[in-house]
Amino acid sequence: MIVVMKVGYSRDEIDGVIKRIEGSGLKSHVSQGIGHTIIGVLGQTFPELHDTLELLPGVEQVVPISKPYKLASREFHPQDTIVKVNGVTIGGDEIVIMAGPCAVESEDQLLATAQAVKASGANVLRGGAFKPRTSPYQFRGLGERGLRILAEVGKETGMPTITEVMAPNDVELVAEYADILQIGARNMQNFILLDEVGKLKKPVLLKRGLSSTIQEWLLAAEYILAQGNEQLVLCERGIRTFETYTRNTMDISAIPAIKKVSHLPIIADPSHATGKWYLVAPLALAAVAAGANGLIIEVHPNPDQALADGPQSLTFDNFRRLMAQLTPVAQAMNKKLAVSGTKAGINPATT
Amino acid sequence: MIVVMKVGYSRDEIDGVIKRIEGSGLKSHVSQGIGHTIIGVLGQTFPELHDTLELLPGVEQVVPISKPYKLASREFHPQDTIVKVNGVTIGGDEIVIMAGPCAVESEDQLLATAQAVKASGANVLRGGAFKPRTSPYQFRGLGERGLRILAEVGKETGMPTITEVMAPNDVELVAEYADILQIGARNMQNFILLDEVGKLKKPVLLKRGLSSTIQEWLLAAEYILAQGNEQLVLCERGIRTFETYTRNTMDISAIPAIKKVSHLPIIADPSHATGKWYLVAPLALAAVAAGANGLIIEVHPNPDQALADGPQSLTFDNFRRLMAQLTPVAQAMNKKLAVSGTKAGINPATT
Amino acid sequence: MIVVMKVGYSRDEIDGVIKRIEGSGLKSHVSQGIGHTIIGVLGQTFPELHDTLELLPGVEQVVPISKPYKLASREFHPQDTIVKVNGVTIGGDEIVIMAGPCAVESEDQLLATAQAVKASGANVLRGGAFKPRTSPYQFRGLGERGLRILAEVGKETGMPTITEVMAPNDVELVAEYADILQIGARNMQNFILLDEVGKLKKPVLLKRGLSSTIQEWLLAAEYILAQGNEQLVLCERGIRTFETYTRNTMDISAIPAIKKVSHLPIIADPSHATGKWYLVAPLALAAVAAGANGLIIEVHPNPDQALADGPQSLTFDNFRRLMAQLTPVAQAMNKKLAVSGTKAGINPATT
Amino acid sequence: MIVVMKVGYSRDEIDGVIKRIEGSGLKSHVSQGIGHTIIGVLGQTFPELHDTLELLPGVEQVVPISKPYKLASREFHPQDTIVKVNGVTIGGDEIVIMAGPCAVESEDQLLATAQAVKASGANVLRGGAFKPRTSPYQFRGLGERGLRILAEVGKETGMPTITEVMAPNDVELVAEYADILQIGARNMQNFILLDEVGKLKKPVLLKRGLSSTIQEWLLAAEYILAQGNEQLVLCERGIRTFETYTRNTMDISAIPAIKKVSHLPIIADPSHATGKWYLVAPLALAAVAAGANGLIIEVHPNPDQALADGPQSLTFDNFRRLMAQLTPVAQAMNKKLAVSGTKAGINPATT
Repeated sequence: MIVVMKVGYSRDEIDGVIKRIEGSGLKSHVSQGIGHTIIGVLGQTFPELHDTLELLPGVEQVVPISKPYKLASREFHPQDTIVKVNGVTIGGDEIVIMAGPCAVESEDQLLATAQAVKASGANVLRGGAFKPRTSPYQFRGLGERGLRILAEVGKETGMPTITEVMAPNDVELVAEYADILQIGARNMQNFILLDEVGKLKKPVLLKRGLSSTIQEWLLAAEYILAQGNEQLVLCERGIRTFETYTRNTMDISAIPAIKKVSHLPIIADPSHATGKWYLVAPLALAAVAAGANGLIIEVHPNPDQALADGPQSLTFDNFRRLMAQLTPVAQAMNKKLAVSGTKAGINPATT
Repeated sequence: MIVVMKVGYSRDEIDGVIKRIEGSGLKSHVSQGIGHTIIGVLGQTFPELHDTLELLPGVEQVVPISKPYKLASREFHPQDTIVKVNGVTIGGDEIVIMAGPCAVESEDQLLATAQAVKASGANVLRGGAFKPRTSPYQFRGLGERGLRILAEVGKETGMPTITEVMAPNDVELVAEYADILQIGARNMQNFILLDEVGKLKKPVLLKRGLSSTIQEWLLAAEYILAQGNEQLVLCERGIRTFETYTRNTMDISAIPAIKKVSHLPIIADPSHATGKWYLVAPLALAAVAAGANGLIIEVHPNPDQALADGPQSLTFDNFRRLMAQLTPVAQAMNKKLAVSGTKAGINPATT
Repeated sequence: MIVVMKVGYSRDEIDGVIKRIEGSGLKSHVSQGIGHTIIGVLGQTFPELHDTLELLPGVEQVVPISKPYKLASREFHPQDTIVKVNGVTIGGDEIVIMAGPCAVESEDQLLATAQAVKASGANVLRGGAFKPRTSPYQFRGLGERGLRILAEVGKETGMPTITEVMAPNDVELVAEYADILQIGARNMQNFILLDEVGKLKKPVLLKRGLSSTIQEWLLAAEYILAQGNEQLVLCERGIRTFETYTRNTMDISAIPAIKKVSHLPIIADPSHATGKWYLVAPLALAAVAAGANGLIIEVHPNPDQALADGPQSLTFDNFRRLMAQLTPVAQAMNKKLAVSGTKAGINPATT
Repeated sequence: MIVVMKVGYSRDEIDGVIKRIEGSGLKSHVSQGIGHTIIGVLGQTFPELHDTLELLPGVEQVVPISKPYKLASREFHPQDTIVKVNGVTIGGDEIVIMAGPCAVESEDQLLATAQAVKASGANVLRGGAFKPRTSPYQFRGLGERGLRILAEVGKETGMPTITEVMAPNDVELVAEYADILQIGARNMQNFILLDEVGKLKKPVLLKRGLSSTIQEWLLAAEYILAQGNEQLVLCERGIRTFETYTRNTMDISAIPAIKKVSHLPIIADPSHATGKWYLVAPLALAAVAAGANGLIIEVHPNPDQALADGPQSLTFDNFRRLMAQLTPVAQAMNKKLAVSGTKAGINPATT
């Protein structure tokens, strides 16, 4: 951290700054002759210090040098993190495809979807049991019954499962049933929930908040990592902008940016990013071309009957077509679509 | 809800639309001769219907007519809601001032602040015990000890108190100590938390989310109202935009807009909206001129020593000056600053 | 400008940085012992240098110290700029009200409006002759005929006039007719147009761009000031955000922020900021309470017949009511509404 | 256009609406029995009508049915537009690569760059002679001398050229020298400039404005098309959001969205979208995977010496590597990189 003094600061002012730094158990080093007088702060700084130094009289600017997150940074952990879940690896040279309905509606609906997406090459089964809904009058999910159906269908089709957890209290319950716990965009800064999933020994998918910067997202990841859970995958799902044609704006740059500054795997959710089924395939291809480690895609037997997110869900046919398009794009990126290791696994290259 | 058919739709397509509407227990009414064929949907529609109708072949556009929230709307509840808490009324012709430190740090800090802000005319004491922090390495509040200090200082100074609750599990605990429960911006769509505070018989302050539209904010309010809690106050605290000079951008228009479409009281938080203490006073005055029912302002004995949000906190002197400026602006708006009803109350007009 | 070197930089890398600085005619000063090695850059830096230094190997970060604008900054010009136009002063302790129709439609329309707004206390007459329109199929203004009408009506009612100029080629023409030239939001970074109005000896009103930061706005102002024209007034008119209830989001913080960092007068345009006539009055009051030096407001004899911007235009009655509300708010701010000096002038306090 | 009346409207109110519609030369058709009374507007409506109808008493809502642009829409022009320039076709099954320095600095710099990018497979040479710069103190381009160098180098290397035009007055001059005229993001709503390039018989590249919706962008395109110039290519170059890690946020969804609603070719500019050279390649690949017809990329012999946009420029080597990566991604999309038809042309597949 560097403190830049105003031109014409007084002796008292600089003394005040130094006293504040040293009173925080840190060391200071004054440097002159470079236009402005600057004071280097030596030792482990903390966010409050930045704020309070900036308030002191005579201070022009306080410049942070280190990033505010550590465990999530590539400096701290140079090699890529690889998350493994039931034979599927996320973060290596395979593209992992998570697919399924927005919400678990019934065993029939989920089983039909699971079989269809698996036949087309999907690796992980998604399905919501607890649904965050903008309006209290919308369908809010089947709750524990949905979790049970998800686990059963996952077992029957040999697919690991992913589902959202919304409340700290539900973490234990959801972890009993699902293989990956998802933190939704609206909960990215639900810090108590982050603490709770950080205590698990299970993989977590952390979606980016609607208005979160990349730095805030990595700080949310830091909450989970700081509790000891390193099986963490990030998911870009669109940010909120002024554009209204799409439900959100997928920040495609976030994918290579995360690869640059962090070691965590990152996947993309083109369904929520766009809100329109006919934009899902182009954005799925784009995300893989930008370096994503995988995709999470909404698929429904009858999107026009879906209890949630119908307009952005693919039919089985559209999903199959997308998977066929993904294969050569993955190859062009020197990657391949992941193949599930279970006996029911089907090589997507042959579909 | 109105469904507009594409030019050149087929008989099968319009039959499909009608079947879908009537299969949802609603009635349809086809109208021709206005350029496009349109189908009116009669009965209580629901958000999923909009989405699924838009997917059907032959459909150009689905137009919602009614607002998605009801209990929060002025149509449903034409007269202004007035929230009362220990002799302070929010939503009438008084301007209510909530003030205090971002975080409760100690009994001394809080008592000194409470006495100072009360002497200048504040009506409600704010102070955080559970703090949502972007980084896991920042001070996260004193927890229950903070709540206890807040309750004691509130009692001692005769001020009702407000503090944030972050987890559904903490609602009962916080409600034991505080007079008003605050839902912070990051939790505006923490729907489980909204349900919980909706079950209380205590006033709730609902801050606007960083990237929430006015409609989403009122839908979050609808969650609380739908559980039966009508003692609800909204708080504009700035939204996230591209501008970086301020921490957030206060959406001043939201104040008269809420007054137009809703009956709920609305106050403003110029401290979090700007993040800079020297912008707090101008924005506080502006909010009152725009029609706000009150303000919530961060005040600290020594902002440069604050454990949180120092740069946006007013000193006692700056707060006193602001209160002196507010008095004539409130009068110009045909309102007056609220006067606490307790014996320790001081008329701000005399300070 | 300060260059912070990466931890573990090489001798060659620091030599490269120093060579680049000195090759640009500047001096460098290396400072160690403060955790990172930093290099101060002495002399007048320029934006390209920042960019290129940041590319050099071994460089962690380049930190600008000075603001990129000079003439527009309060450091350079501590006292408030006051712009005078035909007896009206903008930037002092008077609130200046500019009012009139969005577009000049006819002499009758403009004369009626001018008389009405003047009777209510307006000081400057606005009216568009060249209209920037999102669609090529919208009414684009009367052109020179509109300018002529504006000048005549201004003369007849004794009001100085303001109108928009959209093309560098039109600057001379518009300057012949109007007293203040307005640069619209869409042209804030039309740098050639900025150069042209910078060469005038007439006041210019520079609206903030829809997606411009405060810093970019002041850099646009710098273009005009750098050409020698110091009769410059800024105008906050709303920025583009995700909120769709209002046409734009008025950044009310920009008013005190500009007052802090610049000496230029600033007014607000609540009509364009909101796009809804019923939000114009609350935002006008808020802007004055936040410290604005004036307002520019759309008024039309029959908003529902207006050729442009009807929904955000005030009727004569609504404008009169707003002026009555403004008087006490201005007084509360220790200011007063400006009174035109011409014989037709009417003291707004008596209306 | 459909007018929805409020519940409980009066006879006078509906008569007023009908009178207003018919007074505009259009026909109205009242339809009841669908919950709300609605009035269909028959005939060619116009934007002002929407605004004014919404102001009338008794009106709940006015719903536009048709899109506000026509010539730019796929409904009007179902087949893809193909733009041809000197043997290069944009909009078909070839991916066109435009490359070169941000600014023309000297003949040596441009020639070296042109030869390098052509050898790697680029088809069009870019280079700015008139540079829009945020600050008046930045390098603003060589002007006509830059144009001359660009034309000479283009001729020498057999590459068509593209360069920006900033002022209506310069259109003729720039058109003399360059093969494609570029309208920059800051000028997307410089309507007078749009009119001017619309009168040309030369291809135009229209960049999306920093804060423009897709609809506004197509309306800007409509200005050019309405003047008779159909040789129009769109360019997505990032929009302004709250994220600061990248210079802008590339709206990758805009590529397939434009393909859906318009017939115009669309390319992407990953250099300006990100502002960081190491993000250019991933975003270039993503744009092609999303369906872009081409790319425009900044390349410089020595990015750390560039007079503009150094940090986002690729070196010759990085550009060559990107082209090698693009080939298989284009193939995966059933497209191929365009091959210039001139004798100096080099098949990128062999590089």
